[in-house]
Amino acid sequence: MPFFSNTVQHIRSSEIRDLMKLATSPNVISFAGGMPNNNLFPIDEIDEIILKMDKEKKKTAFQYGPTQGYPPLLHTLKEYLRKKGLPVDTHKLMITTGSLQAINILGMEFIDPGDVVFTENPSFIGGLAVFKAFQANIVGIPLENDGINLEILEQKLNEYNPKILYVIPNFHNPGGMIYSLEKRQKLLELLKGKNIILLEDDAYNELYFSEEAKRLTKPIMSMNTQGVEIVYAGSFSKILGPGFRLGWMLASPEIYEKAEIIKQGIDACSPNFTQVIANEFMEKGYLEPYLNKIRKEYKQRSLMIQSALEKYMPKNIKWTKPQGGFYVWLQLPEYMDSTKILKESIDNGAVFVTGKTFDPENIKNNNIRLSYSNMDKNQIDKGVKIIADVVREYIVPKINLV
Amino acid sequence: MPFFSNTVQHIRSSEIRDLMKLATSPNVISFAGGMPNNNLFPIDEIDEIILKMDKEKKKTAFQYGPTQGYPPLLHTLKEYLRKKGLPVDTHKLMITTGSLQAINILGMEFIDPGDVVFTENPSFIGGLAVFKAFQANIVGIPLENDGINLEILEQKLNEYNPKILYVIPNFHNPGGMIYSLEKRQKLLELLKGKNIILLEDDAYNELYFSEEAKRLTKPIMSMNTQGVEIVYAGSFSKILGPGFRLGWMLASPEIYEKAEIIKQGIDACSPNFTQVIANEFMEKGYLEPYLNKIRKEYKQRSLMIQSALEKYMPKNIKWTKPQGGFYVWLQLPEYMDSTKILKESIDNGAVFVTGKTFDPENIKNNNIRLSYSNMDKNQIDKGVKIIADVVREYIVPKINLV
Repeated sequence: MPFFSNTVQHIRSSEIRDLMKLATSPNVISFAGGMPNNNLFPIDEIDEIILKMDKEKKKTAFQYGPTQGYPPLLHTLKEYLRKKGLPVDTHKLMITTGSLQAINILGMEFIDPGDVVFTENPSFIGGLAVFKAFQANIVGIPLENDGINLEILEQKLNEYNPKILYVIPNFHNPGGMIYSLEKRQKLLELLKGKNIILLEDDAYNELYFSEEAKRLTKPIMSMNTQGVEIVYAGSFSKILGPGFRLGWMLASPEIYEKAEIIKQGIDACSPNFTQVIANEFMEKGYLEPYLNKIRKEYKQRSLMIQSALEKYMPKNIKWTKPQGGFYVWLQLPEYMDSTKILKESIDNGAVFVTGKTFDPENIKNNNIRLSYSNMDKNQIDKGVKIIADVVREYIVPKINLV
Repeated sequence: MPFFSNTVQHIRSSEIRDLMKLATSPNVISFAGGMPNNNLFPIDEIDEIILKMDKEKKKTAFQYGPTQGYPPLLHTLKEYLRKKGLPVDTHKLMITTGSLQAINILGMEFIDPGDVVFTENPSFIGGLAVFKAFQANIVGIPLENDGINLEILEQKLNEYNPKILYVIPNFHNPGGMIYSLEKRQKLLELLKGKNIILLEDDAYNELYFSEEAKRLTKPIMSMNTQGVEIVYAGSFSKILGPGFRLGWMLASPEIYEKAEIIKQGIDACSPNFTQVIANEFMEKGYLEPYLNKIRKEYKQRSLMIQSALEKYMPKNIKWTKPQGGFYVWLQLPEYMDSTKILKESIDNGAVFVTGKTFDPENIKNNNIRLSYSNMDKNQIDKGVKIIADVVREYIVPKINLV
């Protein structure tokens, strides 16, 4: 067998795969998987759509489609994004095979080995894996409760020449926070005139728990009067189902043009079969009622995990109070190692994802990501107690030493 | 906007996209598209499958799945491939988002800029695009009526150190031919002990027109007693529908292991929604009757285009007589330029793909690919006449000059 390519030397290990396995093991209470709830998919709606679909549409569903996407879905999605204030007339939209593919395409389009990419710290493991595969030099910028740390970002912008800044402003994975409107505005001002692409990953946009939170979900791209080069990525995974493998990217015509050629070479087109169905789902007005339903469900789970954390976690542990999305991000004292806590928690029957998984440098490990999206509500309390008991164990001896 | 990456400088232009547009234009008779027939998809069977599917399976269809693939489909496909003599116990199977993704993953796994890849000349445009994107140095080996030219391959193997040899032994795209069993055997002997991966693209395996042709479709990987490192890629696009975006790769555990990590970073998993359906389609025994039906249909179209070619084409034009698949490959006299013929044919109402599109060096242009798969049977005769009339025009003056 010939030697593997350089790329392969730089991709992450099987970390994600191992996580996925743990997350789906039946014997543990899992706070690990970042997926929608199995029991909340709009199965009846989709059944009805398929039943009523006419034969010509079905033929289209079976066939190859344009690389850009199924034209009626592009149209429907454009109107949907227009309502969010996104620049759908000056920019071009492409349907991708999941939003991860959008990150991949942008990586292939811009990153040469050694190029600098800025991400938040912590950041989405899938995004980090892509940038590592393209052998980027990833620089993590600390994430705060209201968004990325702008002082450190400014300082690093003077130090490096990054091609991309990758952010997840809404219901952050894993951070469980949301950018303030002020920080969005200031970020645009800071990036104005800089030769950098802002990659805005908005996969969780719709999953707000209140009108106040909804007001905060304004895409940065919709506020961009500064002429910053922004690529906006979204996903059907959280509003319909990850099994559809559908996402999108909205980009300037220059970036779009090359992106389309890249996608043509990657998988020719996204699945027409699921695109035709997704379009009917939106066109027939099923999306909004469905979103209202799942927002309530995820909010309920979020409140349950908050009560459990308050009940069981030692006093010196902090965590985010999500206003939407799937995640709570716990901050443990600096000396604690979440890998050790994970191991013991698994033995006791609960699993989560360790902090360093989301650290671009794969080091900082005194955090825990708890996902409450895809679990039995009745298990939340029990699972949090298991983890809190282990955390307490690791805290006590330290206090005794003082 | 920052500079594009080196990769982008090396990817092909929008050639494929432009082709696709022409191929689907309603006003011309199209021999261009390499897609299955729109009117032959198993729509009723799939409707029935979805109608009868139980709720638990549907939940799975909406959710993320393992990167390797939906386990029941992996199982079903393994048994299907076992019957073809493929080494499913010693090798590992992965479901890919179309078989093009398998080529992509292998490219990312092994090709560094400047690495040599051997392909047949002509070869599949999607494969060529992938190898170019990874900045491979592509060396084309002439394709003959019974397979790749082994003398030239041997000579080039002494000259270069290729990482991959990419071949399409069954019902070649664009060549319209099939490898003899003898040539498959000799190819294995030639590659024995060489440090090269044979990438066997078998997307058209099932589309034989006779029992004699079926006998020839034996995968090279199933004959491999020589220990050659083979990666076998297949597709649901021709046996179910390209809109499902499902293919597969069968590879040694070493190659598989890295491939899975790469796929995890590309799109996490292939669409579960279509995998669940594809599995039922095979498991319930719908595949074989469906294949029998489409084999007859494509054979009929193939015979019709043969008669039309015999009726209209000038005597000094040669073409392949396909024993399966979608394509006829025409060889024009060396001095002819198929791009000129294409332009005039389009003006007269018929479109095809020019020879140089499939030439790894993008030069040799005295060939024409005619695809008869996705067209109205009644238009075959008329379309061939249009093209033949243009060809004749370009021949006559040359003869007059002699």
